[in-house]
Amino acid sequence: MTKKKYVYLFNEGNANMRELLGGKGANLAEMTNIGLPVPQGFTVTTEACTQYYEDGKKIDASIQEEIFAGLKKMEKITGKKFGDATNPLLVSVRSGARASMPGMMDTILNLGLNDETVEGLAKLTNNPRFAYDSYRRFIQMFADVVMEVPKPLFENILDEAKEAKGVKLDTELNANDLQEIVKKFKTLYKQKKNQEFPQDVNAQLIAAVEAVFRSWDNPRAIVYRRMNDIPASWGTAVNVQSMVFGNMGDDCGTGVAFTRNPATGDNKLYGEYLMNAQGEDVVAGIRTPSPIATLAEQNKAVYDQFQNICNILESHYKDMQDMEFTIEHGKLYMLQTRNGKRTAKAALKIAVDFVNAGVWSKADALLKIEPKQLDSLLHPTFDDKALKSAKVIAKGLPASPGAAAGKVCFTSSEAIERSANGEKVVLVRLETSPEDIEGMASAQGILTVRGGMTSHAAVVARGMGACCVAGCSDIVVDEEARTLKVNGKVYTDQDYISIDGSTGNVYGEQIATVPASLSGDFGTVMQWADEYRTLQVRTNADTPKDAKQAYHFGAQGVGLCRTEHMFFEADRIMAMREMIVSKTVEERKKALAKILPMQKKDFVGIYTEMKGNPVTIRLLDPPLHEFLPHTDDEIQALAKEMGLTFKSLKDTVASLHEFNPMLGHRGCRLAITYPEIAEMQTEAIVSAAIEVKKKHGYDIVPEIMVPLVGHKNELDFVCKHIREVADRIIKESGLNLHYKVGTMIEVPRAAVTADEIAKTAEFFSFGTNDLTQMTFGFSRDDAGKFLNDYYAKKIFEQDPFARIDENGVGRLVKMAVELGKSTRKDIKLGICGEHGGDPATIEFCHNVGLTYVSCSPFRVPIARLAAAQAAIKAKRAK
Amino acid sequence: MTKKKYVYLFNEGNANMRELLGGKGANLAEMTNIGLPVPQGFTVTTEACTQYYEDGKKIDASIQEEIFAGLKKMEKITGKKFGDATNPLLVSVRSGARASMPGMMDTILNLGLNDETVEGLAKLTNNPRFAYDSYRRFIQMFADVVMEVPKPLFENILDEAKEAKGVKLDTELNANDLQEIVKKFKTLYKQKKNQEFPQDVNAQLIAAVEAVFRSWDNPRAIVYRRMNDIPASWGTAVNVQSMVFGNMGDDCGTGVAFTRNPATGDNKLYGEYLMNAQGEDVVAGIRTPSPIATLAEQNKAVYDQFQNICNILESHYKDMQDMEFTIEHGKLYMLQTRNGKRTAKAALKIAVDFVNAGVWSKADALLKIEPKQLDSLLHPTFDDKALKSAKVIAKGLPASPGAAAGKVCFTSSEAIERSANGEKVVLVRLETSPEDIEGMASAQGILTVRGGMTSHAAVVARGMGACCVAGCSDIVVDEEARTLKVNGKVYTDQDYISIDGSTGNVYGEQIATVPASLSGDFGTVMQWADEYRTLQVRTNADTPKDAKQAYHFGAQGVGLCRTEHMFFEADRIMAMREMIVSKTVEERKKALAKILPMQKKDFVGIYTEMKGNPVTIRLLDPPLHEFLPHTDDEIQALAKEMGLTFKSLKDTVASLHEFNPMLGHRGCRLAITYPEIAEMQTEAIVSAAIEVKKKHGYDIVPEIMVPLVGHKNELDFVCKHIREVADRIIKESGLNLHYKVGTMIEVPRAAVTADEIAKTAEFFSFGTNDLTQMTFGFSRDDAGKFLNDYYAKKIFEQDPFARIDENGVGRLVKMAVELGKSTRKDIKLGICGEHGGDPATIEFCHNVGLTYVSCSPFRVPIARLAAAQAAIKAKRAK
Repeated sequence: MTKKKYVYLFNEGNANMRELLGGKGANLAEMTNIGLPVPQGFTVTTEACTQYYEDGKKIDASIQEEIFAGLKKMEKITGKKFGDATNPLLVSVRSGARASMPGMMDTILNLGLNDETVEGLAKLTNNPRFAYDSYRRFIQMFADVVMEVPKPLFENILDEAKEAKGVKLDTELNANDLQEIVKKFKTLYKQKKNQEFPQDVNAQLIAAVEAVFRSWDNPRAIVYRRMNDIPASWGTAVNVQSMVFGNMGDDCGTGVAFTRNPATGDNKLYGEYLMNAQGEDVVAGIRTPSPIATLAEQNKAVYDQFQNICNILESHYKDMQDMEFTIEHGKLYMLQTRNGKRTAKAALKIAVDFVNAGVWSKADALLKIEPKQLDSLLHPTFDDKALKSAKVIAKGLPASPGAAAGKVCFTSSEAIERSANGEKVVLVRLETSPEDIEGMASAQGILTVRGGMTSHAAVVARGMGACCVAGCSDIVVDEEARTLKVNGKVYTDQDYISIDGSTGNVYGEQIATVPASLSGDFGTVMQWADEYRTLQVRTNADTPKDAKQAYHFGAQGVGLCRTEHMFFEADRIMAMREMIVSKTVEERKKALAKILPMQKKDFVGIYTEMKGNPVTIRLLDPPLHEFLPHTDDEIQALAKEMGLTFKSLKDTVASLHEFNPMLGHRGCRLAITYPEIAEMQTEAIVSAAIEVKKKHGYDIVPEIMVPLVGHKNELDFVCKHIREVADRIIKESGLNLHYKVGTMIEVPRAAVTADEIAKTAEFFSFGTNDLTQMTFGFSRDDAGKFLNDYYAKKIFEQDPFARIDENGVGRLVKMAVELGKSTRKDIKLGICGEHGGDPATIEFCHNVGLTYVSCSPFRVPIARLAAAQAAIKAKRAK
Repeated sequence: MTKKKYVYLFNEGNANMRELLGGKGANLAEMTNIGLPVPQGFTVTTEACTQYYEDGKKIDASIQEEIFAGLKKMEKITGKKFGDATNPLLVSVRSGARASMPGMMDTILNLGLNDETVEGLAKLTNNPRFAYDSYRRFIQMFADVVMEVPKPLFENILDEAKEAKGVKLDTELNANDLQEIVKKFKTLYKQKKNQEFPQDVNAQLIAAVEAVFRSWDNPRAIVYRRMNDIPASWGTAVNVQSMVFGNMGDDCGTGVAFTRNPATGDNKLYGEYLMNAQGEDVVAGIRTPSPIATLAEQNKAVYDQFQNICNILESHYKDMQDMEFTIEHGKLYMLQTRNGKRTAKAALKIAVDFVNAGVWSKADALLKIEPKQLDSLLHPTFDDKALKSAKVIAKGLPASPGAAAGKVCFTSSEAIERSANGEKVVLVRLETSPEDIEGMASAQGILTVRGGMTSHAAVVARGMGACCVAGCSDIVVDEEARTLKVNGKVYTDQDYISIDGSTGNVYGEQIATVPASLSGDFGTVMQWADEYRTLQVRTNADTPKDAKQAYHFGAQGVGLCRTEHMFFEADRIMAMREMIVSKTVEERKKALAKILPMQKKDFVGIYTEMKGNPVTIRLLDPPLHEFLPHTDDEIQALAKEMGLTFKSLKDTVASLHEFNPMLGHRGCRLAITYPEIAEMQTEAIVSAAIEVKKKHGYDIVPEIMVPLVGHKNELDFVCKHIREVADRIIKESGLNLHYKVGTMIEVPRAAVTADEIAKTAEFFSFGTNDLTQMTFGFSRDDAGKFLNDYYAKKIFEQDPFARIDENGVGRLVKMAVELGKSTRKDIKLGICGEHGGDPATIEFCHNVGLTYVSCSPFRVPIARLAAAQAAIKAKRAK
């Protein structure tokens, strides 16, 4: 085994070494190479992180040696010495994974300070205020990140000091104040950790590197990885970089900027900076930063230099860049560059602009857009009329576009819970922190009191495509009293508010919304996608309304129409219940006759909205008891309505009880015991198609889908009943109508015997929800009890219900595709589980050779883009 | 397409044409060919039956033509003419499938009679009594079998006639009486069917053939096929044979006989006959027949001729024969021969005798024994001591050996229901009919009042290996009052009786039983089986008692020890419940510490009984709520005992509720959320092995089995915890102990990713119960609601929980075997579902390359034989 190299100086790497050096490290190296002003440093590789975990969370001595060797080289270049009392080298220690995970992992600045070096730094810079400001920052960060002493304890001390002095900002504290604070910080540290604050700078460094490695596995990073498909095995690199200081005085500062506007895509430098501050002050949202444009007024030379660097970086990386910089005594340093995260709107505009500029091909542009992000453009915006009469009660920063209305909600956990119960909530926080990530995802939108456009809330919301208004200082939030006050008016958690992420407006009421449309850049990109994709995109639609929405979004047919959903409506459930409690075939047929015209009407509506595109209709699927009342009161009421005794109805309900409803009397099993149900449904499906053909001339090809088939004989039996009814009705109509009979592949046995089943089935539709449940052997309703443990213990990294499990469920799908085609070469193959709208799954579906994916109407544009990406990637991989 | 031949004269066929002609037809042809006295006739093939179903239950005109052409040839040979008024040809129409299905399908005798031909027959034979006796039999049979007029209506008329005349037997009725009866029968027929009894003999014949075809699909035939693995696609042939008459007078008769004793295997002619009777009289058990030996006194010539034919047939077919014969005016006719059904005891003796006689090789002999039948020898017999003090209250015929004790039960449906509820019942009937077949299978034993050794009850019970005492006329059964009277004492359905099928004794109490032993012929055959088989046979045993029993029956290890079964015992459930309601790891560990010594003790016991053979122990598997109380009263009681509030315990119970427990928090998922459970179990498993090694020197290799694994990571996680504990304990013991860690393959995903899982798993054990549930997507507990419909509609022919579904579940097993071996060449492969004791599944397991099967202790000898048969068949197929 040749010895691995675990530490790379910046000048030893380049942008292609992202896997080894992480994104930040690779780009620091690249910037160094192309001659940009980057403070010197080195990167400890992602492999060192993996090794750290393999070694039982210890950094091996040989790797430690390499780190100190790197440090020596830095000392040589900078002329400073780590831990030296007269000319100390200070470093930042920052995480940097292969994929950007903003705010998820830890950073420590000003490392190398101790009671001696702080004095040296004060003397050397002749700036004791700066020296102690840096030291107090370091103590707090080290204590928080490395030793887990809660940050607020330190902030309290700082706040007390400011209060005692009667000032508001930390910049108003002088060297003596800060020296006092440092003492108090150290006392607090000793109190909490039973040891002095570490003075050995080498120990500081190793502890900090370990802490960053450790932070790869903190709970919020695990959640983030799951949401963003990042494998745990990647690990993070650590960048150790010579400090430059934005906090040395008023000719110093620090900031973040984008080469284009990340919210709109406008081709204009965009960002914020704070003078006399260190990096964390900008993103933490404690002081409100100034827009980047004002830097031109403050220091034209630096601004011009920065503008120039931005141009270099964007054309070098051929993408919009997101950068961090520091100005030390008027000198500009670049601390980071990366492809900038952007809203969907910006992504589309940037894509169109780059293609128009000849920088990207259409295929390149399509690959640059994250399909899931489009979601934000597909959600409703406020209804113009409703908006006119609505009163703005406050105004914040338009941090992430979109419109949201919901009841006020004050904590992340509350947002998760109330949303799960079907409530729409807007999460209102003083400021958000990485712990809020799940709550933000659950809420309709996020409103924060503090923080700017690059605050945590804003960055995360844009990434999620969630609506966000940030830094809305007009409102007063009392998290304990659970109230929100604006201009003296109090809102509780039962009051509605609405927020507009595109304007920053906040409204004290619920405002109606209107659906999104596919126009402008969005339309252009969708058209490109359609040029490249070969996979068709259909929709899951149970109502004419859904079908209409999906058609508008470009759906090429209905891949799944669930007929049972039509029967939960109040005016229909009675007929359904009558059918279920029937004791004889005759009684059941009588009840079914009442249902027939309702079903037919639905199908007429759906066919009409689909304008001649194929519609796949699934026969009744759920266990019958789902339609029945369960409490004694409900049963009593129903019995009365239906003229039955309480006891007899209660007995019927009890007789339908199942131990494992998921594995019970449902799907085609219903059609086998009660063929008359399938017959009624067939009649509705076929006669509706005939009616629509007569009326509109649409040549609908209904695809009748038999659910839960596991054995060819099941399908044969039901198919025979379907064909008898369908053929009779078509013959009676005198028209020519084609229809298909096929099946869901959702039971493992169906996948394994797909060659047999394809003898009868003219199409397969993979029902990957059920297939996942049965292949893994756990039900979605019950898995909640242990899946969190599975994520925490890294047994699963992905939710198999969100993204198809390629190794297991995927193997069955592949097998079924091959077996199905071996029997019936031209078999139509689709997927209609919720996976059908997941981009990674869509790529799998393309590669495995499906004909179409079917997803919810609002996922159709996402699926169109994902299908195009899959086609482009597959072509390029050849 | 060359024209198929659907009708074969007996002289056109032979014994090898069983598939086409059915067993009866092929053997009638064979007997014809070797010159035995067989009445002439022809066989309508099984293909005609299949065609009948394909043509929508109609006999095609061309097949009808062939039938009548066959009839013409019969007329030519016999010199009689079908439907002729002066010399009429009468025929029997009898079913005959490929595999013998005694009593399952229909037979019609004396066909060809009508108002004219009956007169002709009377004149021709000068025996009007005989002619009308034949006609009344024909009308009743035709009406019953072809037209579904209930038989009892006819029997009532016959009974009234006998009563009116003051006689007891039908032989005491004269020609006039019978003529009157014929009239009444015809009136009844017209009344029920709104048409005259058919006089067209051709129409009679076709209707009868159709009725036999139809009877292939009657409910009892479907049940029988399912129990005996006979596919529906085989169909039945129909034999049309010239009648010979046992009812022409006292020099006529009919009987059935076996070349050896079918109950004991004794090499001595065995059977019964009735003079002046037709075949159905013997098997129906209405009159009690005479033993075959007495025929020698009655007609020495015929007896000798029959004895001679028996010898010819046994040496021709090289097996014990079961024959039907008729004597017409002193002349012997053979109506059927087939390999005789026999008890397990007889099967073993016959096998040993035939091998000793040099007729069969050992391999031949092993193939001749039906493994399932051995079951009857493995069940307890009465305890000698208990038997000594027991009083015989009645005595019947020893119809099928074995001992049974249970509460009295009067109907078949009651037997099914009470047995399902865990009650042991003895089915007591006047006589059984084919409809009783399921009830007989559910009961401990069968006691009938009427019928001989070849009555329906006796034949079926022997086939099932069920204990049966038949023809016990000492008892009086009142089926309506639901009582059984013997010598004035009344037994109700709550009273126990015991019956001994080897002696015919009936006892009015519950008698203790003792287990069976493998000695004599049984031991010999088992030894032969062990010489041939390559598949190992292990047992499923949860207790030392089970392990001991299985070891005694030849088990080579434990394939499945279910640890949870140890915790339902009253003295242990408390500790288990404590563990479950624990809120913290510490509390849980405290409760587990109480369980540890109990588990260890069980394992010590099982290892000791297994004397050094490997023992596979499965970690805790079922959802935890199974251990908790569910009613409020039970919860209250437990809360009190455990010092918890009712509410808190109720909440805990509620929180453990699952929607689909089968797909819930169970199996390895428990060990993942609560690793301390797996750790405790590992400690018990390993320290018990060390204790046994120290004490007895047995070098036990415990195989620790992780249940319900679907993903390699699950196994890795649990395996890590197991190995840590196991290695620590072994190290502490200072001994050298080997152990294995493996997994169940019972989740479809495990089968599909077996290559991955085998990286960690040292062995696989196929849990085909769960694998079947998840592969089909139905749970055993819920499938009852629709599986009967599936059988009735021929969607399933087999219960997939009894016999492995080779096409679906089997494909997954095969895949897992191949994938597992691709990763780990020497992986140990077993099966531990209930399928492990099913002979057909065992054959599958042999062919697919498993190392062992594991089954319940009482199935071990069956599995040994089945494994030998599989090895022999596989070798011969090469």
